[in-house]
Amino acid sequence: MHAWIKRLLLPLCMLMAVSSQAWSADDLKSWNDGPNKKSITDFVERVTKDGSADFIPVPERVAVFDNDGTLWAEQPLYFQLFFALDRVKVMAPDHPEWKTQEPFASLLKGDVKGALSGGEKAIMEIVMATHSGMSSDEFDAIVRDWVKTAKHPKSGKHYTEMVYQPMVELLGYLRANGFKTYIVSGGGIDFMRPWTEEIYGVPPEQVVGSSGKIAFEMLDGKGVIMRIPEINFIDDKAGKPVGIHQHIGRRPVMAFGNSDGDLQMLQWTCTRQGPSFCAYVHHTDAKREWAYDRNSSIGRLAKGLDEAKARSWTLIDMKEDWSKVFAYE
Amino acid sequence: MHAWIKRLLLPLCMLMAVSSQAWSADDLKSWNDGPNKKSITDFVERVTKDGSADFIPVPERVAVFDNDGTLWAEQPLYFQLFFALDRVKVMAPDHPEWKTQEPFASLLKGDVKGALSGGEKAIMEIVMATHSGMSSDEFDAIVRDWVKTAKHPKSGKHYTEMVYQPMVELLGYLRANGFKTYIVSGGGIDFMRPWTEEIYGVPPEQVVGSSGKIAFEMLDGKGVIMRIPEINFIDDKAGKPVGIHQHIGRRPVMAFGNSDGDLQMLQWTCTRQGPSFCAYVHHTDAKREWAYDRNSSIGRLAKGLDEAKARSWTLIDMKEDWSKVFAYE
Repeated sequence: MHAWIKRLLLPLCMLMAVSSQAWSADDLKSWNDGPNKKSITDFVERVTKDGSADFIPVPERVAVFDNDGTLWAEQPLYFQLFFALDRVKVMAPDHPEWKTQEPFASLLKGDVKGALSGGEKAIMEIVMATHSGMSSDEFDAIVRDWVKTAKHPKSGKHYTEMVYQPMVELLGYLRANGFKTYIVSGGGIDFMRPWTEEIYGVPPEQVVGSSGKIAFEMLDGKGVIMRIPEINFIDDKAGKPVGIHQHIGRRPVMAFGNSDGDLQMLQWTCTRQGPSFCAYVHHTDAKREWAYDRNSSIGRLAKGLDEAKARSWTLIDMKEDWSKVFAYE
Repeated sequence: MHAWIKRLLLPLCMLMAVSSQAWSADDLKSWNDGPNKKSITDFVERVTKDGSADFIPVPERVAVFDNDGTLWAEQPLYFQLFFALDRVKVMAPDHPEWKTQEPFASLLKGDVKGALSGGEKAIMEIVMATHSGMSSDEFDAIVRDWVKTAKHPKSGKHYTEMVYQPMVELLGYLRANGFKTYIVSGGGIDFMRPWTEEIYGVPPEQVVGSSGKIAFEMLDGKGVIMRIPEINFIDDKAGKPVGIHQHIGRRPVMAFGNSDGDLQMLQWTCTRQGPSFCAYVHHTDAKREWAYDRNSSIGRLAKGLDEAKARSWTLIDMKEDWSKVFAYE
């Protein structure tokens, strides 16, 4: 492109980037018309309309999304746990001691339930053994390979195919309206970053998540980041507003979650001064996805359901509001 | 702007954003022509030229900048320390115990040197006392007010006027060439964020720095982030690549620093696979700024000077390379 064309286009493009007129909501094709879809588009139109009392300048249009259960499925286990279990099998030949050592012994016999009966401690041991002890580049390559090859036990689809089509459309719709979209997940930050840009259009620098400690080293004259088997940060519950403040340094104006682990993120977003929008994705569709809330061990939504009612947050009903859940349907 | 104009412009604007032709280097007005300026513009032209073997796609164009001594001055003390000292004076009436308690007692008598003779421990006490015990919003307001009012003891200028004009131009030049510019500083992340967007064009979400612990609370039904007097992260030396990985999740391709505290950031950047560019700002101008390197207690540059030579990094000579240091000159 010639320099003079650029000089001509630049002001127009900048105007476009900050332009106030909302894009059409036509892009939300997998959303059924109804009060919930309307609550989203009404809010976006209101805060992006020049001269509106509720106008929010582009740099402050921060929208945060939980991942597990909000952008992709999380049943019957968090997908990152499937990743860890797959890794245990791959790594087992190098760890003969695992044959007699729990939770690995049960896992290698195919007894996932038995392995996870050790609770959080067992899960942590599995995660540490499979997520550390290598460089950041090596881990990145392992995740990329797994995402390309592994399949979900129930659907038989790749895990990254099990993202919610309406939410992918929502991410795009918000970005088209000047929002910067972030993932703020209890899942591992480095487990998500290798694929969020391709799948969600969310680049690595806009992913916030849990993390292990890392350390910089010079190895044969080259810099490497090594992954250390210690927890650095848990991006869940009250950790979510903390992660948001540390990474983004701006208070979000829109937040989407699906569980009690997202409650504080929604509270932080929707008790700001000025307009804000919070929504829970409610898993109500046992046929196309899963139906669960108050009594689920994964993605429990109890306190959040009460607070959503008390604060008039939007409760997205998967069964009623989404004409399609997964793109492959 | 009408929707159809947008539909027409969008592809052009996107093309422009990723367009390969470099913008002119005319914007680097405060740089004298010479090998150092040329090393920067040659690199940028090479990696942004379509079809070049060294072409770097826009999303991967990450440039990281140290702040103290690289983007603004740092003598005779780090400016954040002046902020802390000013805060001690403001807060003293509420802390009668400081009259007899070091390092505060010396400070309040005007004996800065005596107060800082306690070394890192004394500095930490001063920083903790002045940077925590309030909400994130309150701290933000305090910093904004200080930046507007406080003046540097030698120049008599506001601290944010003591930014290096050539570096501000460089930030703009890189952004015009598709780079995302980040600050990666040993200074406090929340001390920088309130003013980096206005002064450098670097938004809060692109600032990485040292931090104290924070906690989320609900107070009278509203969310707040409280600042806790404990260290969370020191973004210095080997901490810089760690901070970069945690916040950005991409390996930078350009890095600018001025001290040994930046060495690991430059190593991490310039030992990547593919093209990279590293430079040290060398403080050589005792007349317009300060001259210091190997023997300075603030901004010491010794190991880095040796490594810059060994690895052929660019050594920016303030006296020779910059026609102007500060905009107010």
